[in-house]
Amino acid sequence: MLVVMEKAATDQMVAKVCVLIESMGLTAHPIAGAQRTVVGVTGNKSKVDADKIFAQPGVKDIMHVTPPFRLVSRDHKSEDTIININGVEIGGKDCVIMAGPCSVESREQCFTIAEHVARAGAKVFRGGAFKPRTSPYSFQGLGEDGLRILGEVKDKFGLLIATEALDTESLDVVARYADIIQIGARNMQNFSLLRKAGRTKKPVLLKRGMSATLEEFLMAAEYILAEDNPNVILCERGVRISADRTRNTLDLSAIPYVKRTSHLPIIADPSHGTGRKDYVLPLSRASIAVGADGLLVEVHHDPANALSDGAQAITPEMFDQLMDQVTSIAAILDRTC
Amino acid sequence: MLVVMEKAATDQMVAKVCVLIESMGLTAHPIAGAQRTVVGVTGNKSKVDADKIFAQPGVKDIMHVTPPFRLVSRDHKSEDTIININGVEIGGKDCVIMAGPCSVESREQCFTIAEHVARAGAKVFRGGAFKPRTSPYSFQGLGEDGLRILGEVKDKFGLLIATEALDTESLDVVARYADIIQIGARNMQNFSLLRKAGRTKKPVLLKRGMSATLEEFLMAAEYILAEDNPNVILCERGVRISADRTRNTLDLSAIPYVKRTSHLPIIADPSHGTGRKDYVLPLSRASIAVGADGLLVEVHHDPANALSDGAQAITPEMFDQLMDQVTSIAAILDRTC
Amino acid sequence: MLVVMEKAATDQMVAKVCVLIESMGLTAHPIAGAQRTVVGVTGNKSKVDADKIFAQPGVKDIMHVTPPFRLVSRDHKSEDTIININGVEIGGKDCVIMAGPCSVESREQCFTIAEHVARAGAKVFRGGAFKPRTSPYSFQGLGEDGLRILGEVKDKFGLLIATEALDTESLDVVARYADIIQIGARNMQNFSLLRKAGRTKKPVLLKRGMSATLEEFLMAAEYILAEDNPNVILCERGVRISADRTRNTLDLSAIPYVKRTSHLPIIADPSHGTGRKDYVLPLSRASIAVGADGLLVEVHHDPANALSDGAQAITPEMFDQLMDQVTSIAAILDRTC
Amino acid sequence: MLVVMEKAATDQMVAKVCVLIESMGLTAHPIAGAQRTVVGVTGNKSKVDADKIFAQPGVKDIMHVTPPFRLVSRDHKSEDTIININGVEIGGKDCVIMAGPCSVESREQCFTIAEHVARAGAKVFRGGAFKPRTSPYSFQGLGEDGLRILGEVKDKFGLLIATEALDTESLDVVARYADIIQIGARNMQNFSLLRKAGRTKKPVLLKRGMSATLEEFLMAAEYILAEDNPNVILCERGVRISADRTRNTLDLSAIPYVKRTSHLPIIADPSHGTGRKDYVLPLSRASIAVGADGLLVEVHHDPANALSDGAQAITPEMFDQLMDQVTSIAAILDRTC
Repeated sequence: MLVVMEKAATDQMVAKVCVLIESMGLTAHPIAGAQRTVVGVTGNKSKVDADKIFAQPGVKDIMHVTPPFRLVSRDHKSEDTIININGVEIGGKDCVIMAGPCSVESREQCFTIAEHVARAGAKVFRGGAFKPRTSPYSFQGLGEDGLRILGEVKDKFGLLIATEALDTESLDVVARYADIIQIGARNMQNFSLLRKAGRTKKPVLLKRGMSATLEEFLMAAEYILAEDNPNVILCERGVRISADRTRNTLDLSAIPYVKRTSHLPIIADPSHGTGRKDYVLPLSRASIAVGADGLLVEVHHDPANALSDGAQAITPEMFDQLMDQVTSIAAILDRTC
Repeated sequence: MLVVMEKAATDQMVAKVCVLIESMGLTAHPIAGAQRTVVGVTGNKSKVDADKIFAQPGVKDIMHVTPPFRLVSRDHKSEDTIININGVEIGGKDCVIMAGPCSVESREQCFTIAEHVARAGAKVFRGGAFKPRTSPYSFQGLGEDGLRILGEVKDKFGLLIATEALDTESLDVVARYADIIQIGARNMQNFSLLRKAGRTKKPVLLKRGMSATLEEFLMAAEYILAEDNPNVILCERGVRISADRTRNTLDLSAIPYVKRTSHLPIIADPSHGTGRKDYVLPLSRASIAVGADGLLVEVHHDPANALSDGAQAITPEMFDQLMDQVTSIAAILDRTC
Repeated sequence: MLVVMEKAATDQMVAKVCVLIESMGLTAHPIAGAQRTVVGVTGNKSKVDADKIFAQPGVKDIMHVTPPFRLVSRDHKSEDTIININGVEIGGKDCVIMAGPCSVESREQCFTIAEHVARAGAKVFRGGAFKPRTSPYSFQGLGEDGLRILGEVKDKFGLLIATEALDTESLDVVARYADIIQIGARNMQNFSLLRKAGRTKKPVLLKRGMSATLEEFLMAAEYILAEDNPNVILCERGVRISADRTRNTLDLSAIPYVKRTSHLPIIADPSHGTGRKDYVLPLSRASIAVGADGLLVEVHHDPANALSDGAQAITPEMFDQLMDQVTSIAAILDRTC
Repeated sequence: MLVVMEKAATDQMVAKVCVLIESMGLTAHPIAGAQRTVVGVTGNKSKVDADKIFAQPGVKDIMHVTPPFRLVSRDHKSEDTIININGVEIGGKDCVIMAGPCSVESREQCFTIAEHVARAGAKVFRGGAFKPRTSPYSFQGLGEDGLRILGEVKDKFGLLIATEALDTESLDVVARYADIIQIGARNMQNFSLLRKAGRTKKPVLLKRGMSATLEEFLMAAEYILAEDNPNVILCERGVRISADRTRNTLDLSAIPYVKRTSHLPIIADPSHGTGRKDYVLPLSRASIAVGADGLLVEVHHDPANALSDGAQAITPEMFDQLMDQVTSIAAILDRTC
């Protein structure tokens, strides 16, 4: 950590900051420059309470040299985390494809889609039983009935189930049916939900918030790991940008950044990341090419009659083409799909 | 609503879209332009399920003419909502100043600050007992002990209490002590929390999410009003912008926009909105000048020893100057403080 | 175009808007909804002067159904534009790789790099002689001396030359040496430069502005095409996002969007788009995978001693690996490199 | 400056970086922390060529402690710059109001507006003769004919003239008529134009780019000051934000930041900053309340027939109300209008 003093800071102010730093069990290294003094801080094993130092008279700014990550960091654990769920490995050599409808609508709908995506090579079935909706008047999902359908999909097609937990109340019932508990972008900093999901010890698929920095994203994962649950799958799902006011932008450079900074697996969601079915195929290719550990894709056999997100769901035929292309790209990176 | 067809859409596609629209009980008005056909839709009392239409073959885009607001809208209720809490009116002629520390740290701390801000003219004491923190290792607040201290502040100084509910678990205990339940920016789309806060029927102070559009902000309020709780106070607290990577930006134009679109009161939080105490005074002046119904300000008698957010807390002396200046500005707008 | 009237607009206001529309030679289609009236406008061959309509009493908003593009649009020209420069085709089956240093520093530097990238398969040599720098005190490029070196590179290695024109003054001399005139992100809306570059009739490589929407990007290209110069190569080079405050984000979904909307070729610049050499390889793969018509990559044989942008230049060895991988990915899309 | 080494950087790498730093005439202060080594750099009088250091093996990041400003900085010149143009002082006790139409349309139009705004207290008449337009097919301004009309306004009403120079070609003729040369947001980093405007020695009104950081904004001003022209008036005119996709956001916290960092005057443009006439009045109040040295406002006597930007122009009657209110607010800050 580096404490930048004001140009006008007096020697006493610098001295007082140094005393405070030392009182925290840290070492202060003042460096007097031509313009101002800065104080290097060493000895911190974890994040220092910088607010207190920042609030001292004469302090202009605090610069963090070491990111605040602990358990999620590659410094903490250098080898890749591979999450094994009933033999399916996420974060390993295989790129895992998770596919299914936005919402669970009926047994027939799920069976139709599941049969197709399983045959095409998907390992995980995704589908929402509890849906976060911008409007209180929109379809909110089938609830536990939807979970039961997902349970049948699992039994019948041998697919793992990933489904969203919207709140701490519904988490327990979701955890009963889900192999992977999804936490949505809007809940990325719902710290109570993160903690409780951590305590289930089940794998958690954590989506990046719509304007979350990568540091905030990894710190949200830290909440789950801090509950002794190392099974976190990160998911880049597009950020909101000012340079385009009609779409989200899948931030693919986030993927090499996260792979370098953290040992956790990270997948991409080109469906929400683009919002239009036409873009799902090219962005799926790009996601695997950039190094993602898998994809989360919305597939619907009848998008025009989907109860939600019909515009971004691809058809089973498009999904077949997607599987073909991403498998070929994965092979170039010495991976499988 | 307007359905924009692809240039290449066939007459059959247009006809099918019109049939679908009519089947929803709405009226379709196709208009054939030189480049493409668009279909106007009338008869919708509330938000139409546009996803279904969007997913039809040949549909290029959907444009919403009428915003999706219902209860929050001025179209629904034209006169300003004034929330009366024990005689303090929010949204009326008076600009209500809410002040206090970021975190409740101790009885002494709260009493010192409360005595000062009450004397200077604040009507509401703010202070967090449950704190949302980016890191799981940071100070998380005193919890119920903190709430009890707030209860004593209320009794002793006659101030109303505004304090944050972080999750549905702690909402009940927060509601027992708070006059105003605060929902933080990170929870703006925590729909379960919004609903449950709505059901308490207590006034809710809802902060805008860090990258939320004003439409999303008002739709979040709609969740509370939909539970038959009309007592929502909106709060602009700064958005994250790409044009500056070190600060939030208090979006003051949000305030006239919201006043025009909704009947709900809206206040500004210049402390979080700027993050630096030096900017709290000028932005407080600007907030009242632009038409805010009040302010939420962090005040600490000893910022250098605050347990959180010391860098953005102003001192009691700065608060006095703030009260003087904003009172003069309010008078120009024919308001009081 | 669609004119949305205020809820409170009177019938007279609607009538006056319709009269104005008809007076412009267009047809007005008023549709009275439950909440408000909207007026569809047809008959517009190009962009209507919407400002005038917007300024009428009772008008709430104007919605554009048809984008304002003319010459750049696929509606205007449905087949892909392929730009042939001395036998190198840009926008065709081949993905064209443009590589070289950020700045031209010396003949030796350019020859060393050019020899390597030519052998590895690059068709275009890139290097700046006039450099746009945030600070007036930074190295501003070798100027015409740099251009002469580029001329020698062209003669000796048979590479095409792409180099930036910073202003209308230097455009003529740049045009004398360059096969492709680059216009940088900061100049994307320097309309005088766009026009003058258009008039050279030389191919223009137009970079997207740091916060430009895709509509603004294509309209900037329209300025060049409007000068009867159809030879525009678009370049996605990363946008500034609020969700990450330390990097640019290569907006790869821009590429399928542009390919669908326009007939112009579009390439990606993963060097500026990421700013760190470690990310250039994965983002190059992703760019080709998403459908880019080529890459613009910074290569330096001795990055630690580069006069500018050393941190994002890849070494010749990394470039070889890049060529291998992107060639394999291009093959999956039935393209060559 | 602070050089942050990789965790895995060897002692040799650190030593080599230190040697490089010393070879630049600077002093290196290595500090070995638990996680990594950082190297403090002192002795830099101006911006160091950080790129070169950044490109060394083992370097993870460079952190700038001292901003790169030189002449624009308050460290360089502590007292406020007050620009005196024919007795009108900008940056002093008076808040200077600049008002007029978006585009010069005719002598009659300009005289009507000028007469009104002069009587109401404006000191500067603004109006564009050369207009930057997103579309090449939109009205581009009257050119030199427009400038001649502005010259007549100056003579007849005693108002100073502020008008935009779009490019280096038209700069000379603009400088002949203008008292204040405006450089628009799209040209904020058109460095050739900045330099040439600097060389005119005339006051320059520099608008902030649509996604420019405040550091980039001040560095653009540095280009003008570096040509020995200290007469720069900065102008905040709204930034593009992802949190709202339909409007710009006037970034009012930029004003206290700039006042603290630089000695230059800064004004606000609530017309472009909001885009809607309804918001001009509240944001004008807020701009003066936050400490702006003046306003740039679009006024038109017949907005419905304006040739450009009719939707954001206020009427003369609204301008009178604006003058009244901002004069009262200025008085609270001990200023005049």
